[in-house]
Amino acid sequence: MLHAPHRLSLRLTAALLGLCALVASAQEAPRARARDLGVAPGIFAPGKYNAITDVAGVRVGQVTLVEGDTVRTGVTAILPHAGNVYRSRVPAALHVGNGFGKFVGSTQVNELGELETPILLTCTLCVWKAADAMAEWMLAKPDMQQVRSLNVVVGETNDGGLNDIRSRPVTADAVRRALETAQSGPVQEGSVGAGTGTVAFGWKGGIGSSSRKLPESLGGWTVGVLVQANFGGVLQVEGAPVGRELDRYAFQNAVAAQENTRGLADDRGDGSVIIVIATDAPLSDRNLRRLASRGMMGLGRTGSSASNGSGDYVLAFSTAESVRRAFDAPQLQTTELANEAMSAVFQASVDAVEESVYNALFMATTTSGNGQTVEAIPLDRVREVLRAHGLAPKQ
Amino acid sequence: MLHAPHRLSLRLTAALLGLCALVASAQEAPRARARDLGVAPGIFAPGKYNAITDVAGVRVGQVTLVEGDTVRTGVTAILPHAGNVYRSRVPAALHVGNGFGKFVGSTQVNELGELETPILLTCTLCVWKAADAMAEWMLAKPDMQQVRSLNVVVGETNDGGLNDIRSRPVTADAVRRALETAQSGPVQEGSVGAGTGTVAFGWKGGIGSSSRKLPESLGGWTVGVLVQANFGGVLQVEGAPVGRELDRYAFQNAVAAQENTRGLADDRGDGSVIIVIATDAPLSDRNLRRLASRGMMGLGRTGSSASNGSGDYVLAFSTAESVRRAFDAPQLQTTELANEAMSAVFQASVDAVEESVYNALFMATTTSGNGQTVEAIPLDRVREVLRAHGLAPKQ
Amino acid sequence: MLHAPHRLSLRLTAALLGLCALVASAQEAPRARARDLGVAPGIFAPGKYNAITDVAGVRVGQVTLVEGDTVRTGVTAILPHAGNVYRSRVPAALHVGNGFGKFVGSTQVNELGELETPILLTCTLCVWKAADAMAEWMLAKPDMQQVRSLNVVVGETNDGGLNDIRSRPVTADAVRRALETAQSGPVQEGSVGAGTGTVAFGWKGGIGSSSRKLPESLGGWTVGVLVQANFGGVLQVEGAPVGRELDRYAFQNAVAAQENTRGLADDRGDGSVIIVIATDAPLSDRNLRRLASRGMMGLGRTGSSASNGSGDYVLAFSTAESVRRAFDAPQLQTTELANEAMSAVFQASVDAVEESVYNALFMATTTSGNGQTVEAIPLDRVREVLRAHGLAPKQ
Amino acid sequence: MLHAPHRLSLRLTAALLGLCALVASAQEAPRARARDLGVAPGIFAPGKYNAITDVAGVRVGQVTLVEGDTVRTGVTAILPHAGNVYRSRVPAALHVGNGFGKFVGSTQVNELGELETPILLTCTLCVWKAADAMAEWMLAKPDMQQVRSLNVVVGETNDGGLNDIRSRPVTADAVRRALETAQSGPVQEGSVGAGTGTVAFGWKGGIGSSSRKLPESLGGWTVGVLVQANFGGVLQVEGAPVGRELDRYAFQNAVAAQENTRGLADDRGDGSVIIVIATDAPLSDRNLRRLASRGMMGLGRTGSSASNGSGDYVLAFSTAESVRRAFDAPQLQTTELANEAMSAVFQASVDAVEESVYNALFMATTTSGNGQTVEAIPLDRVREVLRAHGLAPKQ
Repeated sequence: MLHAPHRLSLRLTAALLGLCALVASAQEAPRARARDLGVAPGIFAPGKYNAITDVAGVRVGQVTLVEGDTVRTGVTAILPHAGNVYRSRVPAALHVGNGFGKFVGSTQVNELGELETPILLTCTLCVWKAADAMAEWMLAKPDMQQVRSLNVVVGETNDGGLNDIRSRPVTADAVRRALETAQSGPVQEGSVGAGTGTVAFGWKGGIGSSSRKLPESLGGWTVGVLVQANFGGVLQVEGAPVGRELDRYAFQNAVAAQENTRGLADDRGDGSVIIVIATDAPLSDRNLRRLASRGMMGLGRTGSSASNGSGDYVLAFSTAESVRRAFDAPQLQTTELANEAMSAVFQASVDAVEESVYNALFMATTTSGNGQTVEAIPLDRVREVLRAHGLAPKQ
Repeated sequence: MLHAPHRLSLRLTAALLGLCALVASAQEAPRARARDLGVAPGIFAPGKYNAITDVAGVRVGQVTLVEGDTVRTGVTAILPHAGNVYRSRVPAALHVGNGFGKFVGSTQVNELGELETPILLTCTLCVWKAADAMAEWMLAKPDMQQVRSLNVVVGETNDGGLNDIRSRPVTADAVRRALETAQSGPVQEGSVGAGTGTVAFGWKGGIGSSSRKLPESLGGWTVGVLVQANFGGVLQVEGAPVGRELDRYAFQNAVAAQENTRGLADDRGDGSVIIVIATDAPLSDRNLRRLASRGMMGLGRTGSSASNGSGDYVLAFSTAESVRRAFDAPQLQTTELANEAMSAVFQASVDAVEESVYNALFMATTTSGNGQTVEAIPLDRVREVLRAHGLAPKQ
Repeated sequence: MLHAPHRLSLRLTAALLGLCALVASAQEAPRARARDLGVAPGIFAPGKYNAITDVAGVRVGQVTLVEGDTVRTGVTAILPHAGNVYRSRVPAALHVGNGFGKFVGSTQVNELGELETPILLTCTLCVWKAADAMAEWMLAKPDMQQVRSLNVVVGETNDGGLNDIRSRPVTADAVRRALETAQSGPVQEGSVGAGTGTVAFGWKGGIGSSSRKLPESLGGWTVGVLVQANFGGVLQVEGAPVGRELDRYAFQNAVAAQENTRGLADDRGDGSVIIVIATDAPLSDRNLRRLASRGMMGLGRTGSSASNGSGDYVLAFSTAESVRRAFDAPQLQTTELANEAMSAVFQASVDAVEESVYNALFMATTTSGNGQTVEAIPLDRVREVLRAHGLAPKQ
Repeated sequence: MLHAPHRLSLRLTAALLGLCALVASAQEAPRARARDLGVAPGIFAPGKYNAITDVAGVRVGQVTLVEGDTVRTGVTAILPHAGNVYRSRVPAALHVGNGFGKFVGSTQVNELGELETPILLTCTLCVWKAADAMAEWMLAKPDMQQVRSLNVVVGETNDGGLNDIRSRPVTADAVRRALETAQSGPVQEGSVGAGTGTVAFGWKGGIGSSSRKLPESLGGWTVGVLVQANFGGVLQVEGAPVGRELDRYAFQNAVAAQENTRGLADDRGDGSVIIVIATDAPLSDRNLRRLASRGMMGLGRTGSSASNGSGDYVLAFSTAESVRRAFDAPQLQTTELANEAMSAVFQASVDAVEESVYNALFMATTTSGNGQTVEAIPLDRVREVLRAHGLAPKQ
């Protein structure tokens, strides 16, 4: 066991390291969103904020936990609307792209086709504490005093490189603050909230968001996406081979040393991603499940192949009043899109997922923690690769 | 805020109430297992203990939490083998019969087809604390110091009638004790462990177990089942209409008052059941998934129709060495049953699930808590009904 | 190649054998429905016909194919309503209890949550011809001239014992006749239509049907079931061990000769069952999928454990106008039951599935074909067993 | 009824039209595979033929049906190995990307985790005739005389534009020829076999194939893909926006006329794609199911979002001897890849699916039929777009 003086000095060291990380990140070139680099996947225009909050009523709250040298994590909360979700439920569905994850609440969402709590994102081994904290927060509401069953929904990715995940550092207080400070408007991206300690494609990952607004002739609906990007693969940006040009991609040693069957240990693209898709299109839970499955197609476009160790989940919900479910109503009267009207919503979601991933990467800042440093992707280099592949900012 | 003296006296009252419950249960006629009443579903013989522990290596640990007037809950732990399950994984699969539940760890079990921790059962709002506690317990093992991802598996049913479930009273200590005191041999049944506060078919429910040993010509495999019974319906015991004869069954008021469309509020059979099926038959995860789905057929035989509010999950795993998975092995060499050999294993599991439910009911004792009392099913009355339907103990 | 005279004499022989089968069946004691024997599972009353046709609008058409000695099969058609289902679709869902079967049309039913054709049942190797024939019949309708995609739905069980299934004897004409002669009112049961050559629990199986009408306080909805019973297991009738008492059940040789590991070849309960559940309750496709899954619980009650070789499928649909889907409508306005209102519908379906199986067995008649004879279950013996287990007709 | 002379002249006209189509296609600029244009997705090298047949033992047979003006369809058969698949089964799994299709045999493949017949691809309304024909062909084999149940597997896409699909023109003879002429070596691509009448991204689609060979340090496995491409979206080629540059993409009118809510009728990207993935990696059926799901990620890269009307199915199987299943073996001894070894196989499959789609498009030739003409994508224009996006053939 360590003596007190040593512990103090350890704390001091940790604090200094944390400071250094902040300084390092402050010295970086300014970060940018994908559109600032001329990257704008797909054919539909984004909403006002190009974020999940373009879906009216959706709010996002984020708490970033940076403590000493070891804690680099946080909480991101997504609230479907301003009321009590338990009383006024939104139809929802979860698609499991690759179930190597600890997503909490999955089976009830799909059985009942609805959310009855907000959505939390956090670090892998923190999900259970976060779930318990959100339950406590919900149960304390005045109109929840008789409630004895609650299906809290918590997703996670593993920030165990930069973060001492084994200590499970997310507190009930952090969860409460994320839920209570949620707001509409622009969404903070990059190394923030549940993205504080994540890594994507070998670079610093984080939170990213994007949206699409369909033309009126296709319904005029808005689709908003938020991702917690912590996964890997062979990064491509609108097809431009950024990962290979920057010489950082999954399996690269094996590829480099084809003759040598004893290749270097290799990154295999592991990690995870949680994708949340919100829409004001009035969708049944079945069509939300179909919508959620499209998230994996957007992910594929960025160079992921959902590696074995990746926990890739897509949760979709609709905020439309016409499909909202009042608690205890014996019957539901709903007006929803027919199957035939889904295609444009699918297309918008794939594009917005793709852009959200780029936003997460491009907005993330170099981060040190737990004895290692993960660099932000160098945007100047990215710009070069994009230019060589015909992608440049619109003048 | 209460003054100290009052708090002492409250504690005293609570303790006295707890005592009364124990006394009441002590005064009851002795409880019995189903076979003692001549109830022996199916065609195959049970194993030595007629319990899940008849599958060699399986151990069960139970901690019963009875505190004051409000806490009537507990933890039941099932350990597939004596080693570290994380290092030596067992193939497994989960079937969701009705996903109105908070089962933790479901998606990874089915994605990877394996368990990497023991299984815990507890109360609904306790799952997250229990999951976090088992994670802590696992991560503390000497050979787990590098582990940063862990898929803990925790099932639950809602004992929120007899138990103040909103306080989420399961502690890390209770979880540890359940895991560390697990043993082979006879399994305690009834109002114990995760069955301390459960209710089934309107009577006191609880933990029940049973097993079947296949004839050698069918492989000689053992199938063991453990249930946490907290569900409802129209109880029948090997078809004998016990629920109706004892005038306690789902929808009974609606049935009684067909003409009166304003019937009394009615029990709808809600509740939940977790069914765990262990076998030493060497099964692939796919065949375990098929096996798990048969759990619902056994449940159907007892009079359940898996009501809307019931969280009905069936988890199946194989303990056979020939399908065991060493952590980090690049390839698996397995010897497993072919599809054609599954039928007898299916049959055994349906029978053992049915009998486990009866054992849970028949062994449970009258319990008071949280301001209410739930009676044990009166075995003398049950015997009468059984006799009238040709069922009696073998001489 | 055979000369004409021989062929005539072969035909003559076949005709005589067919005649013998008819004579044999004519000499049997009269068959009866389950209720005539005092068997009435569950708590709710049946509808007027105690058949799937109690759901208003549902029609059933059956064509029985008995030709020579080799053809013992047929077609059973179920029409959800009187209109063109393609134009006016009903929400629907399929549950795969055990997918050892050739069910046609499964993936689209679950993707879109709807039926766009009637449902056909026939023999295993006949499904593709039957599917093609229903497609032709649908495409020929005046309002279908522009249709170039059609998801026909055809279920099957294997009558390859009594029927020369390898010849795939179902014709387009038989399919058309089944579709065009469909009617409401009583449903023919037993060795008829798609049940002509089926075997269940070692006895002659067939078509069976039953229904339940919920009390008004539970919604007053009707649930109707039709089964094509061709499966096995250890027959129990409302729990009474009929299979064991009549000494005909799955695995019986293995059970009899536990010491002898070289037991006799044993029936393993293989076969299949298609269960169709109709209801006028206004259900979403998700709740229909939940309803369909309950079919397996009813099946479990009869003594099945869904053996490896059994193709057990449950298809559920709702005829309610308020959930009907007009072809080409851009939006759907629906009024549907909330999740909370499902439990009584679940209960009714489990009971009606159980009774449908008994009706199939009890109404089936001894049938010879393809060189073998399968006996009808002897109702006098069944009555004895039922009486010994407290089951007798209500006076 | 027409007189003979007229019928002859009709036939003559039809023959001439067929000839014209052939002439038109002969006049086109030569077609090329993706790699000839410098398009080579991903990081791993292709196999010898860059085709599904690079997986040793896999054979492909194709029959092209062009008759008169109305028939433009065909059959593509994929045989996993040279033996009788029924006797020597390969593990397999099906992923339903979007189940708007008539895929035959889906439920049994996933229940038993295996193929017992070759795989056929054909036109939508032809699946049932094709299925019946393959059953007949299989049942006629000398070692199949006792077989009475057979799960034939047939996929389809809808060529109902160029092909008179309502006539269901695929014959038993065409099916037999496809099965019996299957061979290893190069695979014919474009407007051939089941791709004869298909359309993709608004251009002529067809059959495409590709493969990847993993470095030895990653196992050295081969992954081969064959697609029947008949789907749409917003075509991109390794990210280059070919669809937009060539002014042919889904929703383009709606995008062009954002202000005008009464936009022109618009293509919505409907259609379908069947993706078949073969590998010699020894995979369990569960890992094949995971592999199959990655097919949708490769599809996403080409610009699809799996529109509502698209039947998108991915079937994966392993040819490895160590996971082969002998018919009637009571136990299976297998050596298979552990979960951890899957990531590189996933990556290879995503890349090969992407390239297969490009090969289908680039090799397809302009086709007329059924009163309309669908042009091949102009490769000179494609080359321009690729060059502008930094993609050019390696020198």
